[in-house]
Amino acid sequence: MLREFDGRTFRETFTRAGFDDYPEATQAVRDILAEVNQRGDEAVLEYTRKFDGVELETLLVSEEEFAAAEEAVDPEVRQSLVEAAENIRDFHRRQVQNSWLEHQADGVALGQRVTAVEKAGAYVPGGGAAYPSSVLMTVIPARVAGVEKVVLVTPPQAGGEINPYTLVAAKIAGADAVYKCGGAQAVAALAYGTETVPKVDKIVGPGNLYVTLAKREVSGMVGIDMLAGPSEVLVVADASARADFVAADLLSQAEHDVMAASYCVTTSARLALDLQKELKRQCAQLERCDVARESLQQQGALVIVDSLDEALEIVNELAPEHLELQLSEPWEALGKVKNAGAVFVGPYTPEPVGDYWAGPNHVLPTAGAGRFSSVLSVDDFVKKTSVIYYSPQALLKSAQKIEGLARVEGLTAHGQAVKIRREYLEEKGSGN
Amino acid sequence: MLREFDGRTFRETFTRAGFDDYPEATQAVRDILAEVNQRGDEAVLEYTRKFDGVELETLLVSEEEFAAAEEAVDPEVRQSLVEAAENIRDFHRRQVQNSWLEHQADGVALGQRVTAVEKAGAYVPGGGAAYPSSVLMTVIPARVAGVEKVVLVTPPQAGGEINPYTLVAAKIAGADAVYKCGGAQAVAALAYGTETVPKVDKIVGPGNLYVTLAKREVSGMVGIDMLAGPSEVLVVADASARADFVAADLLSQAEHDVMAASYCVTTSARLALDLQKELKRQCAQLERCDVARESLQQQGALVIVDSLDEALEIVNELAPEHLELQLSEPWEALGKVKNAGAVFVGPYTPEPVGDYWAGPNHVLPTAGAGRFSSVLSVDDFVKKTSVIYYSPQALLKSAQKIEGLARVEGLTAHGQAVKIRREYLEEKGSGN
Repeated sequence: MLREFDGRTFRETFTRAGFDDYPEATQAVRDILAEVNQRGDEAVLEYTRKFDGVELETLLVSEEEFAAAEEAVDPEVRQSLVEAAENIRDFHRRQVQNSWLEHQADGVALGQRVTAVEKAGAYVPGGGAAYPSSVLMTVIPARVAGVEKVVLVTPPQAGGEINPYTLVAAKIAGADAVYKCGGAQAVAALAYGTETVPKVDKIVGPGNLYVTLAKREVSGMVGIDMLAGPSEVLVVADASARADFVAADLLSQAEHDVMAASYCVTTSARLALDLQKELKRQCAQLERCDVARESLQQQGALVIVDSLDEALEIVNELAPEHLELQLSEPWEALGKVKNAGAVFVGPYTPEPVGDYWAGPNHVLPTAGAGRFSSVLSVDDFVKKTSVIYYSPQALLKSAQKIEGLARVEGLTAHGQAVKIRREYLEEKGSGN
Repeated sequence: MLREFDGRTFRETFTRAGFDDYPEATQAVRDILAEVNQRGDEAVLEYTRKFDGVELETLLVSEEEFAAAEEAVDPEVRQSLVEAAENIRDFHRRQVQNSWLEHQADGVALGQRVTAVEKAGAYVPGGGAAYPSSVLMTVIPARVAGVEKVVLVTPPQAGGEINPYTLVAAKIAGADAVYKCGGAQAVAALAYGTETVPKVDKIVGPGNLYVTLAKREVSGMVGIDMLAGPSEVLVVADASARADFVAADLLSQAEHDVMAASYCVTTSARLALDLQKELKRQCAQLERCDVARESLQQQGALVIVDSLDEALEIVNELAPEHLELQLSEPWEALGKVKNAGAVFVGPYTPEPVGDYWAGPNHVLPTAGAGRFSSVLSVDDFVKKTSVIYYSPQALLKSAQKIEGLARVEGLTAHGQAVKIRREYLEEKGSGN
């Protein structure tokens, strides 16, 4: 089912779609942003009617709806969400960074303050599907970071309601409010604010192409986490790997959507052979078989390489969102991994362990962004501010050097701001 | 010289230009990006001829040019650059974060790897002016982070050469190469790579509107630090502040360019009165007096407020790039500051101390971005990757809960990836 390559041909043929490849979608998104910016709720409700086919009275999910959701969900699954939330909270608490300030003996104090953004908005896909796990993964890090107001936007189902698991997860994660809107109009509502939806400082969470393009457009005016493309997994496997495990993992990626990319890079021709058979066998048993098959055939690749080092070079070039190391010595390979969103080590750590359960975030950089950006974390919800203090003596000691540096940059007023203090202190004699 | 407001009217009248207010410039930038992407060096050289009025043979600065620069600079100023570099290195070393991995008793190991980006490019303004301090501020954090290749782009002077202080600073900071190009074409060269300029993973550094729009366009394909607008300072001053100090600091911001914004927010009507006089007096003595005056009159503001708390509310709404606290109790006020790029504490810490000398970075979020983004730091040159390991026993323990969560999201293959391992282990009986 997978197209087969050797390492060289795969690296030559491999290309990624850039966001500039979608001019029409980008223009459509710009129009939506402008409308919502001007007309607020009215525009959001119109687009919800148009794109989600739902006529809403209000965007805000009511307490009655939350209560009904609690009734509707399977208690066992709810308990699993509670445990997953605890794992996610535990892991993200380890990411909290402290402010620091150091008073030096020379009268200088330098430091770095870490403060949370005031308001954050999480986008969670919805409509047909339900992603309570994404609710936990986006809201909990914001809460751990200390964000004052954390809201959720997610598109409504055909009947105008939100999936009960999504609402229950929102309560478990501690979201302050959930709004029934999706697509570019939801991003616009969070970026500009409407009568109902608060203007936030940071927008996070994965979405479809329109959501991603909208985040890109508002980025800079408001903070965004990353530009998420279709999901990817790359499994590096050697002769020790089980074909049935690898096949199951590739399929779990491929079922997301036809654009999802599933790669296996292996040093074992034998495994490659068995893998193709296993993919056929297991795919036939899947509910979303057609999606998975098309995804594998169109986007997937089976790459047979000469060495593990070659495999890891490919990994670092692709910077896969998800990387599985199904190897006899996975920890040694990990040391050579430079670019990846999340790494799943060993045969008993399939990607869903991270998607749902373990605690690390499942919102990850895609389409090669792992070369320069990070998994969603508490860092996304804080900002750092430098703190500088100079005593009169400390300023006197460095004043003329600073004045000299200002001079070569031709900024006399910069020098003057230091000089006026130096001369005042020299007169006062407090420099002695 | 400054327009005067009370707190309420200032907050009402204050607005910021968004990047969408520049459609022509944005289109021009898109064209430049496309040309450089297609034609590489040839296009960059053409734009350098067109915009910088310079005919270049090659973009790369030669060793001979570096040697000549060493001859040309004032040795005392060079020594000051060396000392400033040491201060910057010391401060940024405190930002280095370690990878961590924790093996738990239950057979689970979770961690976070911190790895440097492979290649980074720093943009430093040039042409008429020279900013060796910006060279230090952009290159050193990348070096401290462990970036393998760090290059610099800066527009050439009329004669085709680069200011000697810029080149000397590049050597002191440890840049691997300097390229003679600026504007959107330089950003394009770093984003796409050319025959001469390497494609980088991260582009940092301040620039003019075209540079900023270009960074915005390539963001996502390559990492960028932030979208920098005109420089800003906000001085919060009470009756204890000296008008001559405050005036000097506002002027040091205003001399940058006519778009630079200088605000003083004070609880003292007396200070406000003296400040206007001091601004007139000191401005007359400046080389860049005309720029500073126009900047103060067009962009500046003197805001008289009833209380320090009101002043700090204004600070948090504006999120100024530079915040000076010229107060009798500046440390207490600092505790109420939520949004600012860098804070300069007390009367003897004028902004130039941070611009040139103290060690914290001078590349800071502007135009309100301090609400969600941070001062440039080592963080900008690293990315974080999650690491997840589950033992067979650990997977067995959680398998059915994970399968349940996958089920409610309608992703059967996700559940299957766990189930196939659980059933294998149950058969093998290694779960007992």
